[in-house]
Amino acid sequence: MTRQRAQDDKAIEALTALLGQRLSRSKSDLALHGRSESYFTPAPPDAVAYPETTEEVAALVAICAEHGLPVVAWGTGTSLEGHALAVAGGVVVDFSRMARVLEVRPEDMDVTVQPGLTREALNQELRATGLFFPVDPGANAALGGMAATRASGTTAVRYGTMRDNVLALEVVLADGRVIRTGTRARKSSAGFDLTALMVGSEGTLGLITELTLRLHGQPEAISAGVCAFPDMAAAVAAVTDTIQMGLPMARIEFVDAASAAAVNAYAGMSLPLLPHLLLEFHGSEAAVAEQAQQFGEIAADHGSLGFEWSVKPEDRKALWSMRHNAYYAILASRRGARALVTDICVPISRLAEAVEATQADIAAASIPGPILGHVGDGNFHAILLIDDANPAELAEAKALSDRMVRRALALGGSSTGEHGVGMGKLGFMAGEHGAGWQVMGDIKRALDPKNILNPGKVVPPLG
Amino acid sequence: MTRQRAQDDKAIEALTALLGQRLSRSKSDLALHGRSESYFTPAPPDAVAYPETTEEVAALVAICAEHGLPVVAWGTGTSLEGHALAVAGGVVVDFSRMARVLEVRPEDMDVTVQPGLTREALNQELRATGLFFPVDPGANAALGGMAATRASGTTAVRYGTMRDNVLALEVVLADGRVIRTGTRARKSSAGFDLTALMVGSEGTLGLITELTLRLHGQPEAISAGVCAFPDMAAAVAAVTDTIQMGLPMARIEFVDAASAAAVNAYAGMSLPLLPHLLLEFHGSEAAVAEQAQQFGEIAADHGSLGFEWSVKPEDRKALWSMRHNAYYAILASRRGARALVTDICVPISRLAEAVEATQADIAAASIPGPILGHVGDGNFHAILLIDDANPAELAEAKALSDRMVRRALALGGSSTGEHGVGMGKLGFMAGEHGAGWQVMGDIKRALDPKNILNPGKVVPPLG
Repeated sequence: MTRQRAQDDKAIEALTALLGQRLSRSKSDLALHGRSESYFTPAPPDAVAYPETTEEVAALVAICAEHGLPVVAWGTGTSLEGHALAVAGGVVVDFSRMARVLEVRPEDMDVTVQPGLTREALNQELRATGLFFPVDPGANAALGGMAATRASGTTAVRYGTMRDNVLALEVVLADGRVIRTGTRARKSSAGFDLTALMVGSEGTLGLITELTLRLHGQPEAISAGVCAFPDMAAAVAAVTDTIQMGLPMARIEFVDAASAAAVNAYAGMSLPLLPHLLLEFHGSEAAVAEQAQQFGEIAADHGSLGFEWSVKPEDRKALWSMRHNAYYAILASRRGARALVTDICVPISRLAEAVEATQADIAAASIPGPILGHVGDGNFHAILLIDDANPAELAEAKALSDRMVRRALALGGSSTGEHGVGMGKLGFMAGEHGAGWQVMGDIKRALDPKNILNPGKVVPPLG
Repeated sequence: MTRQRAQDDKAIEALTALLGQRLSRSKSDLALHGRSESYFTPAPPDAVAYPETTEEVAALVAICAEHGLPVVAWGTGTSLEGHALAVAGGVVVDFSRMARVLEVRPEDMDVTVQPGLTREALNQELRATGLFFPVDPGANAALGGMAATRASGTTAVRYGTMRDNVLALEVVLADGRVIRTGTRARKSSAGFDLTALMVGSEGTLGLITELTLRLHGQPEAISAGVCAFPDMAAAVAAVTDTIQMGLPMARIEFVDAASAAAVNAYAGMSLPLLPHLLLEFHGSEAAVAEQAQQFGEIAADHGSLGFEWSVKPEDRKALWSMRHNAYYAILASRRGARALVTDICVPISRLAEAVEATQADIAAASIPGPILGHVGDGNFHAILLIDDANPAELAEAKALSDRMVRRALALGGSSTGEHGVGMGKLGFMAGEHGAGWQVMGDIKRALDPKNILNPGKVVPPLG
């Protein structure tokens, strides 16, 4: 028995003493927490912990620190870059038993929740308050995980990302200390912004055990619309004009012709095989109608093929089901395929160029890759569909993804708008951040000198 | 000659070789850069540097690192907490020769500037573009300094603070390395948010040499209004209702009865001696008129004494001159007085209580302290007027300020909404952040192990 193995056994023993049945070593549990929703090789942990309190998390981390055992936080396992894979073994901390709303404060438009709570469960609890939490990454993710990956989604153009909607955190550090970052004040200049540092740190600097989130008023009315454009450049020009006019879009989404084809096949629709924009406006009844009309005029100026819009909930639902199902429609368009989903984000002025160059790359490749995007932020995804049994296709998808990222960086953008680094983007960090990536490593070393928190993610290998 | 003194001389020699006449040791220059706008004892540096390029800043910092000489960044010297005082001597880096707009990109609604550029100079350059930079802390501060202190001001309720409006930075680190944080993408999940870490770090982690800022569309129309309320609680209730209705206020400012009295005396006005709210709405002509009317109805529900509003620029200017002059009116209300300006920020639901308790404290004190505030954010300032020649008054003002901060923290708020830590708030950091303050120290130690960047500010003394 090696020295580390003996340490691991001692750690597991101490964790069992702490959590009893809530430390699981069952094969099915390890397998379930060793998988991701993406193309990565599974990496099961040595144990799965189900803590119920911050104190238990702190005690758990202190035990792991003592014995050098890795600790990986787990929300719903919906991340796309292998963030929660226990690539160095250790304990996965599943927050499903810390999933309560702790306090809603309607007057302050904020809420304090536990990290395992999902965004849909939160909004369900908020229904009667007139408030809602707007960040919508698609998956019904846990709010702790959404903060850890700095998630966003379709509404970021209006309501911001997790960066903008996390007011304060409670965090367990690598040595088991518990800190609170931020306050419930709407703004503060009181020193380093540790809240912003923890948001997007992917469990490598601490485990989030409590979040205080900003809420927003449920809109009095919503209008939604869709239109097709002759090409991507025209669609993007319409978006740019809309933003510059100051029209407050709540959502503005792009689907390309290949995505429209997949949606037609999946849902029996008959969309023209052209790029589409889908929009939503939130506000008073008069305002959302006026805004939809104004957008329609802008779209027409850019050659749109009609613009259908409605304020009726049933029409809106039908319209958005196209966007919500687009990912599944695309997956279904190639039988048995897995997806490698790219996530670049570029300045709006370079978006048309980035999408068109990406489409040309994909047209020249042997694998399909329909494109969807949060066009108001300059962020889009190519859903590269690969045959799992064919390693050459994964290699080709990775090569396409590399090319997209290099292009995004050359255009002044980022390798990842909202999915995060995890395993999949680690190779791009030096290119995106230069010497700044080493600074991230310096911060990691200062806060987690033993490298037990989600090792192998985000930062450079710690020498 | 001590060893450190010899080192300092060598450093000054090397800096002179680097900068020539742009390294100043003139008495007047040292005195000018040793003062603050507040009550702190002057602390002149050993030299003032006027770099013209990032490369010069990097070389300067590398020289100072080699010789252990402190480096303090200087914008316009308008900070209120003694941030730029060279309390450990060293070199003040005055950015007045790095004050250019480098690139405006109207399509992307962003701009890249040098740190010495003031916000008014930026908006002057932007006039013809239809865009503007909204953050307005009152003083015509340098944008580098505004980022370094995470400044905000009257428009934060609509447009956010510097936290929300800095997209990317170029920073010179403590060892002279130059990094770029962030990109021009509107959002990113690519690792630790070094931009947010640098914003608000007050020159203790790096020197900002370039900023990329978000711009906003100049509003098509502006409406502005003012009304008096019978008491503070009624005014705050009107604000809360306005926020919950989703009325998009661009500014909502509070002045108390004592401030109204000072304004009357200073500007020959005849405001009722009551709490007032001043508002501004930005949007389309129809929208800003509707919003002002809706606010008027909410205010009336809370017993407001009339509500005057206008969309005419001259009326708006007259109205806001009251707010813009309020600080000077208050200063003038006590001949020869200096001000200690408090800056707490609390959740909106606790704002009325915080203001009323503060007013009671001031009523029981021997010094006057009119109150102004950014009421939409829960942030307010008591302008404590002290006789410079009477140390007992400074002590009394500090005791009042301490009491306000302790109250703010007990109410879930922050010691400083927008002024920052500097010298004046250092004593509150342990109370506000608990163990989190030590984490700030850990980060400082990792990024500036020799403690040369603005030593004595923000973080705990480095052991």
